[in-house]
Amino acid sequence: MLDFTDNLRPSQPDGSTTLARERQQSNIATEELGQHLLASDGFLERQARILPIIQQEPLFSKDQQQNLSRPERFKLGVARAKLLRRMRDTHKWSYLEYQMAEYLVDDVSPYFLHMEMFITTIREQASEEQQAHWLPLTESWKIIGAYAQTELGHGSNVRGLELEARWDSRTKEFVLHSPTLTASKWWNGSLGRLANHAIVVAQLLLPDPISPDKYVSHGPHPFIVQVRDMKTHQPLDGIVVGDIGPKYGYITMDNAYMLFDQFRVPHSAMLSRYSNVDSNTGIYTKPEKPALIYGSLTYVRSNMVHRARLVLARAVTVAVRYSSVRRQFQDRDGDKKGPEMSVLDYPTVQIRILPLLATTFALHYTGLAMQTVYKNARRDIERGNFNSLAHMHSMSSGLKSLCTILAADGIETCRRAMGGHGFGGGSGLIQVNNDYLSKPTVEGDNWMITQQVAAYLIKKMTVAVESPDTPGVDETDARFKEFIRNKRCSGAEKRTYDVLNSDLDIVKSFELRATVMAYDAYEQRVTKKQNWNSLLIQLHKLSRAQSESIIVATFFDALSNDKTLSSPIKTVLWDCFRLFALYSMENESFEFFQSDAVSQADINALASRVQDLMARIRPHAVKLVDSWMIPDYLLDSALGRYDGRVYEDLFNRAHRLNPLNRITFNPNYWEDEIVKGSGDNGGGILSKL
Amino acid sequence: MLDFTDNLRPSQPDGSTTLARERQQSNIATEELGQHLLASDGFLERQARILPIIQQEPLFSKDQQQNLSRPERFKLGVARAKLLRRMRDTHKWSYLEYQMAEYLVDDVSPYFLHMEMFITTIREQASEEQQAHWLPLTESWKIIGAYAQTELGHGSNVRGLELEARWDSRTKEFVLHSPTLTASKWWNGSLGRLANHAIVVAQLLLPDPISPDKYVSHGPHPFIVQVRDMKTHQPLDGIVVGDIGPKYGYITMDNAYMLFDQFRVPHSAMLSRYSNVDSNTGIYTKPEKPALIYGSLTYVRSNMVHRARLVLARAVTVAVRYSSVRRQFQDRDGDKKGPEMSVLDYPTVQIRILPLLATTFALHYTGLAMQTVYKNARRDIERGNFNSLAHMHSMSSGLKSLCTILAADGIETCRRAMGGHGFGGGSGLIQVNNDYLSKPTVEGDNWMITQQVAAYLIKKMTVAVESPDTPGVDETDARFKEFIRNKRCSGAEKRTYDVLNSDLDIVKSFELRATVMAYDAYEQRVTKKQNWNSLLIQLHKLSRAQSESIIVATFFDALSNDKTLSSPIKTVLWDCFRLFALYSMENESFEFFQSDAVSQADINALASRVQDLMARIRPHAVKLVDSWMIPDYLLDSALGRYDGRVYEDLFNRAHRLNPLNRITFNPNYWEDEIVKGSGDNGGGILSKL
Repeated sequence: MLDFTDNLRPSQPDGSTTLARERQQSNIATEELGQHLLASDGFLERQARILPIIQQEPLFSKDQQQNLSRPERFKLGVARAKLLRRMRDTHKWSYLEYQMAEYLVDDVSPYFLHMEMFITTIREQASEEQQAHWLPLTESWKIIGAYAQTELGHGSNVRGLELEARWDSRTKEFVLHSPTLTASKWWNGSLGRLANHAIVVAQLLLPDPISPDKYVSHGPHPFIVQVRDMKTHQPLDGIVVGDIGPKYGYITMDNAYMLFDQFRVPHSAMLSRYSNVDSNTGIYTKPEKPALIYGSLTYVRSNMVHRARLVLARAVTVAVRYSSVRRQFQDRDGDKKGPEMSVLDYPTVQIRILPLLATTFALHYTGLAMQTVYKNARRDIERGNFNSLAHMHSMSSGLKSLCTILAADGIETCRRAMGGHGFGGGSGLIQVNNDYLSKPTVEGDNWMITQQVAAYLIKKMTVAVESPDTPGVDETDARFKEFIRNKRCSGAEKRTYDVLNSDLDIVKSFELRATVMAYDAYEQRVTKKQNWNSLLIQLHKLSRAQSESIIVATFFDALSNDKTLSSPIKTVLWDCFRLFALYSMENESFEFFQSDAVSQADINALASRVQDLMARIRPHAVKLVDSWMIPDYLLDSALGRYDGRVYEDLFNRAHRLNPLNRITFNPNYWEDEIVKGSGDNGGGILSKL
Repeated sequence: MLDFTDNLRPSQPDGSTTLARERQQSNIATEELGQHLLASDGFLERQARILPIIQQEPLFSKDQQQNLSRPERFKLGVARAKLLRRMRDTHKWSYLEYQMAEYLVDDVSPYFLHMEMFITTIREQASEEQQAHWLPLTESWKIIGAYAQTELGHGSNVRGLELEARWDSRTKEFVLHSPTLTASKWWNGSLGRLANHAIVVAQLLLPDPISPDKYVSHGPHPFIVQVRDMKTHQPLDGIVVGDIGPKYGYITMDNAYMLFDQFRVPHSAMLSRYSNVDSNTGIYTKPEKPALIYGSLTYVRSNMVHRARLVLARAVTVAVRYSSVRRQFQDRDGDKKGPEMSVLDYPTVQIRILPLLATTFALHYTGLAMQTVYKNARRDIERGNFNSLAHMHSMSSGLKSLCTILAADGIETCRRAMGGHGFGGGSGLIQVNNDYLSKPTVEGDNWMITQQVAAYLIKKMTVAVESPDTPGVDETDARFKEFIRNKRCSGAEKRTYDVLNSDLDIVKSFELRATVMAYDAYEQRVTKKQNWNSLLIQLHKLSRAQSESIIVATFFDALSNDKTLSSPIKTVLWDCFRLFALYSMENESFEFFQSDAVSQADINALASRVQDLMARIRPHAVKLVDSWMIPDYLLDSALGRYDGRVYEDLFNRAHRLNPLNRITFNPNYWEDEIVKGSGDNGGGILSKL
């Protein structure tokens, strides 16, 4: 439909002109930085190759998905997931290539739990015999499985699960039974509408050897269970299962509820690689190495640490590009000539966006370090060496907590920094925000799991206090022991770190602050025997301090050790390091002051130093986000387009794509009729699915 | 459909039992506190009277609204808004009663801008003749109007609007024309699909008296314009208008875009109470008192300050009730007997929820104070006395910025503190969160408007520095002058406030911190002549400090002056005062230390004092939220139900109300078909509308 708006252009300088100028003014080589960040495992090459294949499929067009109802959107999610799986066959994609396609389409796959948790659990916890039976069915997707652990009343406390698996020695079966409503499985992805099988975690109840009418629980164990008929796809008798309903995000995921009414499964249903029930005697065999279970939890957490950078980079890309294009007011003290100022030139916009830009790089190097620590620890564990397990567990817990919160809060900060249009669907940040807000809670609540970091550090501090003069067995141990030795020389002059002039001193100040807080926690818990729960807030702060010191040290090490980056990139990345560190320091400045890590005068100077650093980074901001190489198709954002055609795109979405504009309404309140006349009521576009 | 789940109950102690015990353990009289908070203008009485009327209308059932598409949800919004308007006629509701009904239904009304901005602008800015013509049509809803000011490229900077209204002296008409795409009106509520009229703000272009072919802009002025045909409801020729599409929230609002192509309106279209164009000479008359425009802006802002408390109270009600019901783990240092702990007993849950509970009361008294200041200032202004205008403008800007951010962040903090179920639709916090997130941006962006507070304070400080020894004309002036006089006695011993033992000292410490920051800003801007934009971050912090000191002082005054509250309520409200103040202080502790308001030792003690205060408030938490008297119907939350039947409600929503569970899916990826078999595909429930 042509009208007079077809000839209109945005006022000048428009977005394309502005972004072109932004790119001219920086000497950063985006291609080089992009390769540095993302080329190592072939990520960029895969992205470039898969993107055009995805974009040519009409089903993957994102034009209308915000207009759909939950049932419609879920149907679209299933249709897309099936097509992606078929394309994997057609194009003979590797799993990495298939993951890239999913990443670009950007739907949470309703098959996600089948691919991740169902297959993985069979591989890790099923006996060889069980694997031989189940893996071919699973890998070919002949059956679709899910993972059902959490319950309506039970999340983090796995030992508190209520679902029972009672051994019936007469029939040699386990009887799955939900004794209460709170025993209902809950949140289990892919199971609500899609899966026909599930790993079901239940309390293993076995007859007490002394008085066999009594049953004793041996704790939660996994069982593999068919839950729906393979022909009709209806739940089997004795099972009630369904989707739990609308959520904040994850609209294309069918999170489930599921209850069992005396539902019988054979002896072979219990996954028995590590533990088993003898079908003749009913005698239970314990797992030898319970520590192995830790492995898969830390695997998921370290992946979340690694992925946080790209999620945040997406939001920062949109925010930096749009705030360059968006102009508002002229300089109050200026000559009032020329166009209005890019809002990214206002320090109050910079302070919200540029520290987050720096954070994307901080998260990048931390993610890499976490992956390395994980791989090395896994390798050690496979060889029977469990020494690095506790460190890996602590590091992944603390970083999962901190990095997912930095990313989740960062997305929302970017959205708000974009003012009105940040609230609109053209921001491209609604779905990513809604989906990502699950991350602070899943795989260990971000407040809960910081206890694990604190417990680890208190243990390390206890060792350091007991033997401060022996050599440190690792970095933390050495640092703690040095701290204890220094404490003895109480007469020594206190020296704070020169954080305004030395990058190494920045690292040391973060480490000292974490060490002092670890020592305080040790004193409270070990020396003064304080109740654990009464210390939880302090322990949470300790975990954050420790995790921040890891991020800062890792960022520093990565830049110090790099031999490849060109000088302009190196310079701006060092500024990003300083900005991330000093901005974080300013936010918790009293902790740094109190731990004698930084002087009062230096803390006072932080705000102005942060502002100077932002001014230095500002001219490179657009090229820095360009370097994350996030395709427009993934961004799905009018505000964040690479070409800067922000207003053209916003207008197009409103004027040409919005189905609500096909409906004519009747505004007269005294008439019942809502829609005026017959006409297309918008169903046209929606019913295509 | 009956099944075995009908007989299942939650594990014990269940939610009802738990909340009953919670209510037993506190001696707070909720009825008394509820009356104290909400009875004064008849709010509670109205709520009790209107609620049952609303609840019996099937159209107002909230069961399915989360499952609808944007077009369906908008249709539902229009249907509800029309019904509400008809009920106003039927029940002869006053405007307050009608607003109560809208508040309970909890849809942003698609007629909102008609009622608020369209009518108000006609009343305030139209000439008497114009009012006589337009008000009857408007008040009877014969015409529906909107308010079209902001544009695609122009928000806060009203002077930068691009839409032109050029005076054609030949035909005595104004020609409305959008010269660019960015000149498109944008975000204008009620106009996208519904309104047939609008107040349109455009640059008034008049011929230059010296060279009449040239046109000169006299700045933005309001015009009243018919935009759609009264019969067909189609846009008039020369106008393109529509809904801008999906947004983060406000799903039932049709925010508009609108452009004009040489569209002619008569001379009478320009609202001419304050300014006018002579239709014969084309000569422009300026408004006499531009300051009056301020009035309606501060009116909207002070209302937002006042409303923030009930929005936050809603989230806190849900969070407190659910975290009492939710149990997780036993005390690590305890005897491990009995049920798991209520999660609200963990300090890490308390620290997220209880300071926000205290904040609801802080916002309450501040909201009342703001209303009083507004009313008094309006009264003065009507009498021609403009003395209090600047103070009112500064106070409403600073408090709008701070209070809406406290509420917006508070909702999300509550949601996250509820773990997994907080992410679910049963939280009842999704729509309120999505809708409320507009508030930090609208009616003056929260970062932008803090400049107005800072400018006001710098001006006051300049006066104080110039004449420190004259008597203070108001509280701020007196405080600033005292500060300047004290500065002269540089030899005097520095004294910090005893914030751990004196409530009055808490207030003084907040005031001193704000005063010191105002003086620093004065030094930078006035003495050192720093560029305004370079100071923006500092000025933003100053505004926050000032607004916090207003909230703390107002809370203190309200409790000190109260003569009616019973002692148990008074005691816990004082603890809430301390918790709000000391928690806020801890978050910005370095500012208090740096301004010599609080000693280092006292700052160190804040964390433990905050924890003590939370332990004191904890037993009353459920009854304190009960006192806000928010009906279950408004909460629409399984987690926040008054009766604590959390798990029963969550299960009911999933198992009985979720339309997705009526659809049987086909999980086989090699088959195109998405839905398995014929069966009901969920459309049944959705198509009822």
